[in-house]
Amino acid sequence: MKAVIFNNNLYVDNAHKPPEIQKDWAIINVNKAGICKTDLELTKGYMGFKGILGHEFIGTIKNCHDDRMIGKRVAGEINVSCGHCEMCKKNLERHCYKRKVLGIQGLNGCMAEYCSLPLANLIEIPSEINDDRAIFIEPLSAACEILEQVKLSGEERVIVLGDGNLGILCSWVLSTVCSNITLLGHHRSKLDLSKWNNLKITNNVDDIKPGADIVIDATGSKTGLSVAISLCRPRGIVVLKTTISQDHSLNLASLVIQELNIIGSRCGQFKDGIKMLLNNPDMPLERLISCKYPLEKATEAFKVAKSSESIKVILENIC
Amino acid sequence: MKAVIFNNNLYVDNAHKPPEIQKDWAIINVNKAGICKTDLELTKGYMGFKGILGHEFIGTIKNCHDDRMIGKRVAGEINVSCGHCEMCKKNLERHCYKRKVLGIQGLNGCMAEYCSLPLANLIEIPSEINDDRAIFIEPLSAACEILEQVKLSGEERVIVLGDGNLGILCSWVLSTVCSNITLLGHHRSKLDLSKWNNLKITNNVDDIKPGADIVIDATGSKTGLSVAISLCRPRGIVVLKTTISQDHSLNLASLVIQELNIIGSRCGQFKDGIKMLLNNPDMPLERLISCKYPLEKATEAFKVAKSSESIKVILENIC
Repeated sequence: MKAVIFNNNLYVDNAHKPPEIQKDWAIINVNKAGICKTDLELTKGYMGFKGILGHEFIGTIKNCHDDRMIGKRVAGEINVSCGHCEMCKKNLERHCYKRKVLGIQGLNGCMAEYCSLPLANLIEIPSEINDDRAIFIEPLSAACEILEQVKLSGEERVIVLGDGNLGILCSWVLSTVCSNITLLGHHRSKLDLSKWNNLKITNNVDDIKPGADIVIDATGSKTGLSVAISLCRPRGIVVLKTTISQDHSLNLASLVIQELNIIGSRCGQFKDGIKMLLNNPDMPLERLISCKYPLEKATEAFKVAKSSESIKVILENIC
Repeated sequence: MKAVIFNNNLYVDNAHKPPEIQKDWAIINVNKAGICKTDLELTKGYMGFKGILGHEFIGTIKNCHDDRMIGKRVAGEINVSCGHCEMCKKNLERHCYKRKVLGIQGLNGCMAEYCSLPLANLIEIPSEINDDRAIFIEPLSAACEILEQVKLSGEERVIVLGDGNLGILCSWVLSTVCSNITLLGHHRSKLDLSKWNNLKITNNVDDIKPGADIVIDATGSKTGLSVAISLCRPRGIVVLKTTISQDHSLNLASLVIQELNIIGSRCGQFKDGIKMLLNNPDMPLERLISCKYPLEKATEAFKVAKSSESIKVILENIC
């Protein structure tokens, strides 16, 4: 099968061995796959990953032990947990100590004609949600994770830093709960695309009054956290939503002096992303798709995804 | 009056002008003052402070508008708030945007024959608490702040990093709520002094099983936070209790991946410190006093306080 491989460099293998069926797992025909900033980091050596890339996908179940599920259109939770460790027992399967993560850690990903995940990880996509919206379920669920971690009254003043895909999705998700959200980004074109649901946008940090109740850092930048800390009120919350793989210099004195609460936030539950899509059919996700490429042109697609003007690049017509 | 001054260098001024009485403020005869790690940082340029050092004291009210308070033995809350700003209105006076802080920020401190604070900041010390215990009210209240910020069931496994005064006090305070506390430090002598209330102690990080529910960083060291993060379980809490004035290099990827919650923690409320002292008359605070010096020998006392073997150095016989 065709597959997008990272093995110190990035290439499309046209004759990769397809996954074999395992007990309790399913084989999925991949329809579309999204390129995420994490994929770009992986191609720089993050996590030391080698293999088939990709963790955002929509596909159709081709083979599994439950005949009723074959042919269903699905998305897939990316963390494959052991089911037995301390974290799994606490219902924190996404933090399983022995987890594998689709296309990120110890498990081949979805940028291929076929991928494989446990059937329990797959979730059927309601017919109301078309493929171009459903491809956002993974990052949208990651944005919804904030609502699970931070209890919001709706009265909070929130600032989101970063006008990439995740920053915009975080703004939109939070705007369904809080009315006072400002998105700060560097790219006028992306900020214009992000206008929805009374979101305030600016490309100038000086436009923002410090002292926000909650600041989300979705910049993926080394300076993001320092800016977030400077904009947050004493005893406020900073949510760190993007990983930075390298060491970087920080001064955390004001974190202590202001008694801030910094919350790391990663994957979310797909049921929350799907619910968000069903409840907000006007959330303009399609706008975020910068371009679509066939799988064969994945290396070109990755180049475009690296451009600061791109938001979401999709691989499609895979099967 | 005699006063310990920092003005690019540290010295004792024998003829400093005493504070004058202001409306709603009190003049206090200082009996004892403690040297804190923050004082040592201030003498390296932290906060750009210049003036009389000191924020831990026990004294006797010499002059104020309320005659009934004159002669009372008191300690003093170190944050002087404006009473009007957004933070003050939220009962977060310790985070007042215009605050002055005794001997730290915009306000002369207590290492002098007399100091001055608003009468509202002063709290009478119950007679059950002698001076050598009462001098710990400020750092003990700072340790109690953790209990205000983190709701504990008592079942948590807690690790405290740092065998300095604050690390030991945090361990003792938390041990009144949780039974499973381990203190990790570098100094065998300090760890031996810290034995109380079934506290576990070790000087070897390899003795500690990672995956703790809560890790307190009271090291004041650049590497403390990274060690704390490595010992904390997914979705666990890291409390950052000491400030580091310089920038330092960090990798926060695992903060996001593990979805940790990092809480900055600073001053506490004196009523909590006093309650802790009254409820725990056997907490062996006196052990933590490494030595006592008269105010005249403050520069020598600061040198001893800098030694890694010292825990708490006290200036006494001030008036």
